Amino acid sequence: MQATNTQVLFRREPHGFPTPEDFEIVRTGLPDLVTGQFLISNLYLSLDPYMRMLMGGGWTYSGKPMTPGQVMVGRILGVVLESKNPDFGPGEHVVGRLGWQTHAISDGTDLDFKVTRKRDIPLTAYLGVCGSNGATAWAGLKMIGEPKAGETVLVSAAAGSVGSAVGQIAKAMGCRAIGIAGGEDKCRIVTEEFGFDACCDYKRDDLTGQIRAAASDGVDIYFDNVGGKMLDTVLPCLNRGARVPVCGVLSQYNAEGEPYGIKNTRLIFDKKLRLQGFLLSDYRELWAQARAELEELVAAGCLRYRETIAKGIENAPEAFIGMLRGRNIGKQLVQLA
Amino acid sequence: MQATNTQVLFRREPHGFPTPEDFEIVRTGLPDLVTGQFLISNLYLSLDPYMRMLMGGGWTYSGKPMTPGQVMVGRILGVVLESKNPDFGPGEHVVGRLGWQTHAISDGTDLDFKVTRKRDIPLTAYLGVCGSNGATAWAGLKMIGEPKAGETVLVSAAAGSVGSAVGQIAKAMGCRAIGIAGGEDKCRIVTEEFGFDACCDYKRDDLTGQIRAAASDGVDIYFDNVGGKMLDTVLPCLNRGARVPVCGVLSQYNAEGEPYGIKNTRLIFDKKLRLQGFLLSDYRELWAQARAELEELVAAGCLRYRETIAKGIENAPEAFIGMLRGRNIGKQLVQLA
Repeated sequence: MQATNTQVLFRREPHGFPTPEDFEIVRTGLPDLVTGQFLISNLYLSLDPYMRMLMGGGWTYSGKPMTPGQVMVGRILGVVLESKNPDFGPGEHVVGRLGWQTHAISDGTDLDFKVTRKRDIPLTAYLGVCGSNGATAWAGLKMIGEPKAGETVLVSAAAGSVGSAVGQIAKAMGCRAIGIAGGEDKCRIVTEEFGFDACCDYKRDDLTGQIRAAASDGVDIYFDNVGGKMLDTVLPCLNRGARVPVCGVLSQYNAEGEPYGIKNTRLIFDKKLRLQGFLLSDYRELWAQARAELEELVAAGCLRYRETIAKGIENAPEAFIGMLRGRNIGKQLVQLA
Repeated sequence: MQATNTQVLFRREPHGFPTPEDFEIVRTGLPDLVTGQFLISNLYLSLDPYMRMLMGGGWTYSGKPMTPGQVMVGRILGVVLESKNPDFGPGEHVVGRLGWQTHAISDGTDLDFKVTRKRDIPLTAYLGVCGSNGATAWAGLKMIGEPKAGETVLVSAAAGSVGSAVGQIAKAMGCRAIGIAGGEDKCRIVTEEFGFDACCDYKRDDLTGQIRAAASDGVDIYFDNVGGKMLDTVLPCLNRGARVPVCGVLSQYNAEGEPYGIKNTRLIFDKKLRLQGFLLSDYRELWAQARAELEELVAAGCLRYRETIAKGIENAPEAFIGMLRGRNIGKQLVQLA
């Protein structure tokens, strides 16, 4: 086997936002395949905020933090190059958490799914809207949000991969969708491209007033990707019995010092709210169903998405840092080959 | 009809803790009964923290705040004196939200239930452990907490009417019960009388350390009656997937100024917690079942309770203020007749 593997290793815990020095890029050889294994050329790497939690900061979220020298955890979409496994043949596409590297050897047990392309959906969609991000949106909104037609769904980080899917799935279910995003450009994309009914710009003044104007009947579901001060601002805008699927805490991953204290928590009682944190992995038995529904929505033109694609594994750390700073729109990918 | 009715009226919104001047005591006559009505002599009044919310402070909780001059809202246990309603005969006991007054006229539609005394359970229990407090404990613990045998249940305000029932119901379901209460005396009652496995004293130092020592396997359910800083302290002690039935916000009812900001809310996501506010009225269809189970537990000696009984409706305001300041143990009642 002649392939060389380029890997991005976790080097050290960042202080606040990561810097390129917190990563290390190395080249290694690849061992020979043994029976049951196959070699994957990783075509695209998905960059997601949860990776920052695995770099340290006391999160327990998805298992242990990474240790220095470990390949950065991440989902890839790859193509099988060589195989000693009858279930995975050369040319087949797979998605799995194989890490920030150009190649991987798998026996299939560490994969999420084999991509069976239907309806001409682009391959990269299986790392985003038809992959873990879409399924996260689907599971959090449906299983925890329990939307009913006519209700109002508010989503933070609405221009992102998960947020943009939440609003569009909500619309497809007969709900009103309102986004929160940072800046005019993102807000325009959220409404014009993703079809939300409105989008509030948190970089402008009076987020509360913007939300109240957009959601004149109040908010029934707040799909929370951000936490912190934004959650505090949203709480008074929620209706009695509102549900809050808590999908992430973007405001906290890179925060240093004492976290923001949420003052409106008395409303959890006063308004009979339900706040619930969740992980996609809690709903593993629903992934196939979610993917099928998401593919259908994409094919019908009801679920649009944007991608920001960096090129070359060497640029993955910069792309990751940019995503944490909100520089991307939609799904942040790195093209590896 | 010769009876005179003594009523406690809501006079004005308190600043912080209520004072006797926020109430007004009046005497009135009673109108004649019309067909379908019956006259009740109110024997006991139940005093509960939710009443403070109805006195103002921006709570939306259970409908509108009271207006000055209105009879204070409250549940009573009474006996029918005269009746023009075939379903309610003289001598029968009823429980309902008829207000802080010595007498009431009802047509039955505003009552919670007729007391059918089984198993020699004392009448007053139907305002507490076999009434709304016990049913609140039962519904919040079972429906939101979803306890499984072997799990650890932590309860704040554990010496109170709801809290003491939560721990004992949890024990009856095979859980470990840990209380939080204020002061040595209350803590001793919680363990020795109510049979909790441990009780943490929030008036002592290092509540976190006390909780961790008492719950060495972590906390699976936190039944929250207090909110605020105590909730912030408990959050890091919760296990992944823990449930938090939010039954009240004792720390906030009389608070002035900016509320305490909860800093550990990122754990809602990180630990996949579920926090859910609830009202007993959400579970109206389960009240009869709850009451039957509670009666059974009381009769079996598995559900003990304490009562603090003030005498005379004139003393209701003082008893209420004392309860808000934590001076009572168990159920705070006022004997009216």
